[in-house]
Amino acid sequence: MAERATPGRVVFIGAGPGAADLITLRGAARLAEAEAVLFDALTDPALREHAPRARWIDVGKRGFGCATGQAAIDALLVTMARRHRVVVRLKGGDPSVFGRLEEELAALAAAGIDSEVVPGVTAALAAAAHTRRPLTRRGRGRSVSLSTAMTADAGLHAGARHADTEVFYMAGRQLGTLARQLQASGWAGDTPVCVVSRAGCADAVASDHRLDGLAAASVLHAGRPAVVTVGVAARAVAAAPQPRAETDAAPAGRAALAA
Amino acid sequence: MAERATPGRVVFIGAGPGAADLITLRGAARLAEAEAVLFDALTDPALREHAPRARWIDVGKRGFGCATGQAAIDALLVTMARRHRVVVRLKGGDPSVFGRLEEELAALAAAGIDSEVVPGVTAALAAAAHTRRPLTRRGRGRSVSLSTAMTADAGLHAGARHADTEVFYMAGRQLGTLARQLQASGWAGDTPVCVVSRAGCADAVASDHRLDGLAAASVLHAGRPAVVTVGVAARAVAAAPQPRAETDAAPAGRAALAA
Repeated sequence: MAERATPGRVVFIGAGPGAADLITLRGAARLAEAEAVLFDALTDPALREHAPRARWIDVGKRGFGCATGQAAIDALLVTMARRHRVVVRLKGGDPSVFGRLEEELAALAAAGIDSEVVPGVTAALAAAAHTRRPLTRRGRGRSVSLSTAMTADAGLHAGARHADTEVFYMAGRQLGTLARQLQASGWAGDTPVCVVSRAGCADAVASDHRLDGLAAASVLHAGRPAVVTVGVAARAVAAAPQPRAETDAAPAGRAALAA
Repeated sequence: MAERATPGRVVFIGAGPGAADLITLRGAARLAEAEAVLFDALTDPALREHAPRARWIDVGKRGFGCATGQAAIDALLVTMARRHRVVVRLKGGDPSVFGRLEEELAALAAAGIDSEVVPGVTAALAAAAHTRRPLTRRGRGRSVSLSTAMTADAGLHAGARHADTEVFYMAGRQLGTLARQLQASGWAGDTPVCVVSRAGCADAVASDHRLDGLAAASVLHAGRPAVVTVGVAARAVAAAPQPRAETDAAPAGRAALAA
């Protein structure tokens, strides 16, 4: 196909984690304008219904730590934007969180191509929703840190404790290694851990563990992208202990945390 | 209105940050089923179009740190669920992040009322999308921590450095206090800071600062909820410095970080 007189633009869209109905209305609307869509392995095929006439191109990255093909994707984005009015780059979850967005934005900027980013639901939020375990809690859970356990060279990174709750985006088979590294860096063996694999999908699986028993979860979540919540927010919310008085908010919140 | 023979259920929905089209398709679909909707001050009135016949109840919390009325909201949720088949609790951003979800889930559990949580786009993701500044970066920005600067007693909390990038959810007028506390806890005065107020809304405002000059931003963002990004991810993504070779992804990423 010939190049356009002026290049088109690229819209990065967060497809949300898994299920097609976790994309935003804005994301779905921009997708409907697309002439070409470059999509990742972690996006739901049902999203094609929003842009049935677009050219869909599988760029097949799995996301966590694998650099294979990133430069090819960058180059393809530029090429497609020179041929099409609107090109969508559809990424699982949110483009700004572990999405390799930086490299692709830099390539487009170098080529003088306009871009827009439409945010999406990142997997940690879907895992929290699935388990009904809020990532922040009153009093004891005022910060949450999102990390990926894998570095660019595929080694594991699990440093010192950061926030009240740590959420790791990782492969299910790495759970044993993560547990060992977290304990080595000072986390207690009885720290609560909640693992949700394929969060946001219809076949999501959630399981509860102590940190020192986390390795056993590898079998259950093997071969599935997982969200691992460590710390305060890994605990289930307990029922409030008594009928609530309208003028007193504090006791129920504290009771739920203490459970 | 009379109570039902069996109570209905409550669906917590993340409305997304501001603009009505940042709700998910699932959130919009559940909203259309609602007979009653309890909504916060930070949700877009245009969302009413999804449930025009529902009873809309403004529970008017601003979210950050103010506990006034939480027990009343908990009690109202229970009362409404006993009268209606589907009650929606619509929260700005994502319900699991600084959304007081724990207290409301605990109250419903105590009353034996079913609940579901539909995730949404939290403000940090909308701020990153608006500025096209990914929250994670290759190599140097592998973790991001979300915190609220305010505690339950309305004091400021800005502890030791957590992650490569810290994102604070706060009121625009508190920027000077945050800057002082972060510097007192060891952050360098020349740390890059990006402030986005009303992220996700049509009238979002973004500004760049050094940490030691952040206080001056209070005027610009006064009276507006703000997302304050501190650290690696506060920097703009620079254009890749040269035409990209298809077999080499690394240089562009490093150059963008160094810029």
